[in-house]
Amino acid sequence: MANTRFDVLGIGNAIVDVIARADDAFLGKQGMAKGGMALIDEMRASQIYKDMGPGTESSGGSAANTIVGLASFGAKVAFVGKVKDDQLGKVFQHDIRAAGVAFDTPAAKDGASTACCYVLVTPDGERTMNTYLGAAQALAPGDIDTKMIAEAAIVYLEGYLWDPKDAKDAFVAAAKAAHDAGRKVALTLSDAFCVGRYRDEFLDLMRKGTVDIILANEAELKSLYQTEDFDKALEMLRKDVKLAAVTRSEKGCVVIEGAKTTAVPAAPIKKLVDTTGAGDLFAAGFLFGLARGANHETCGKLGGLAAAEVIQHIGARPEVSLKDLAAQAGIKV
Amino acid sequence: MANTRFDVLGIGNAIVDVIARADDAFLGKQGMAKGGMALIDEMRASQIYKDMGPGTESSGGSAANTIVGLASFGAKVAFVGKVKDDQLGKVFQHDIRAAGVAFDTPAAKDGASTACCYVLVTPDGERTMNTYLGAAQALAPGDIDTKMIAEAAIVYLEGYLWDPKDAKDAFVAAAKAAHDAGRKVALTLSDAFCVGRYRDEFLDLMRKGTVDIILANEAELKSLYQTEDFDKALEMLRKDVKLAAVTRSEKGCVVIEGAKTTAVPAAPIKKLVDTTGAGDLFAAGFLFGLARGANHETCGKLGGLAAAEVIQHIGARPEVSLKDLAAQAGIKV
Repeated sequence: MANTRFDVLGIGNAIVDVIARADDAFLGKQGMAKGGMALIDEMRASQIYKDMGPGTESSGGSAANTIVGLASFGAKVAFVGKVKDDQLGKVFQHDIRAAGVAFDTPAAKDGASTACCYVLVTPDGERTMNTYLGAAQALAPGDIDTKMIAEAAIVYLEGYLWDPKDAKDAFVAAAKAAHDAGRKVALTLSDAFCVGRYRDEFLDLMRKGTVDIILANEAELKSLYQTEDFDKALEMLRKDVKLAAVTRSEKGCVVIEGAKTTAVPAAPIKKLVDTTGAGDLFAAGFLFGLARGANHETCGKLGGLAAAEVIQHIGARPEVSLKDLAAQAGIKV
Repeated sequence: MANTRFDVLGIGNAIVDVIARADDAFLGKQGMAKGGMALIDEMRASQIYKDMGPGTESSGGSAANTIVGLASFGAKVAFVGKVKDDQLGKVFQHDIRAAGVAFDTPAAKDGASTACCYVLVTPDGERTMNTYLGAAQALAPGDIDTKMIAEAAIVYLEGYLWDPKDAKDAFVAAAKAAHDAGRKVALTLSDAFCVGRYRDEFLDLMRKGTVDIILANEAELKSLYQTEDFDKALEMLRKDVKLAAVTRSEKGCVVIEGAKTTAVPAAPIKKLVDTTGAGDLFAAGFLFGLARGANHETCGKLGGLAAAEVIQHIGARPEVSLKDLAAQAGIKV
């Protein structure tokens, strides 16, 4: 696409992950829904932290992980999200910039501390998340630089942004700015519980054309249309949005656009270690292919490749160059 | 040993590690001595952080890593060290307590922020450390609970403590309290550069009997006696301290006590990933054996086992139960 300074600009909750191992009994005792993301307040956050084991901290956030993944593929990318001017906020700022991402959203000087997510990884590699949104909730329409938005081929939004009130307005403002500049707007449904909270609003965004591209996993899609029938949900999705990629874990992904359907198998893995970031990194590969004009099969393969890398180690950001990985796998973009 | 509430009580710099990958060219450009630990001020810390790649944060600190390793073996342990009451200070407090360590040193309310160490891991698995001591420097004799010291079979001190002025006084106060209660005092020489800074003082501590047990690696021992001849250095060490364990990387370790010498081979590893914490975890296994009355060969084996675990993953703290690992290896204590 001509005149684009960025392949993708992502807007999302700026979060530092605190990752610890836990067993299923711990999740049960804490009343946590395995595999999901629960929003927690400060009091609950300190209670969980007190009870959980030793952790490691690393920058996270769904759309932020995707944008860092895109940078690793060699894409030109930017991120918009809110941290506080505290130690974890500085960690987030450092990591995303060090990954090659343009990140200029001013940090909040006061108010709640930088968002953190307690990620509990069970022995089966599944992750269960508890997010304290903190400063991320302070993202407001004023943080949206419409000039920057206009310079990105795709604006990518996370469904989780629908949780903080002001961020929702920022989300809509960004989508409008993108469309005014003739750009595409992509949205990830984020989480089945998130879809449960905002089903009607998400459908409205799709049907009104506020978003052009949907990324979702099987559980999110089923939750969106309140059906257990995957094929039926896929047909409904086909009518509601121009383009969508639906991931199905080890079954790979399905890309739909109008009447066209492209199924792409998952990339092989040696060992599942931690599913944190799987969907985020799939989105990175898929959007990279899309921004560079690749066909749907290649987009799906790139997504699968990036997801496979991230689930074979602890943490939600790639540990090796995804550009090199794609070259090694012989995927040409 | 009778009347001991703790097997080992460790005193050290309370540090949060920021671990990132780097290549040798980066170390060269930054003027860093590969494999060593350099003390840095706040300005240099922010410059290094700006230049280095994305990192992950996890609790560290030499003696703290050792104490956490001891807890993983099933030992009763305590730690004394100073953090600030900030986000990284809370991370340190959480992690060490969650590992089962008694940690009650009050956090500093003001002054410098919690200490951090930029750990750069090169592709060969070697780590190069840059430490901003921050709040750790505020450890003072007033933080030494002599009653707690008297309840520990062994008090373990890190040579790095000799850097901050007040901590040095705390160190001496702790050693005196331990000896007054009939306990043993162990010291790790920490780092060849650290030995270079305090050679005479360390020798003095040994010769005056302030410390009973020395832990060192080959480079530190050679630096202590300013010789390239390992055997010669070992003979000098034998005269200066009652008991010592000297590690020699893949060549294992040598334990000396009077005329007695016990050489123990290193535990096998599959792949060297990150040497951060190798010496700290050797100390954990060795001191665990010692506190439980094991012979020198068993002490050395336990040390080698713990070191082998920690160098096969990123980070300086064990990821699996060292107690289970020892049981699987058939090492009985």
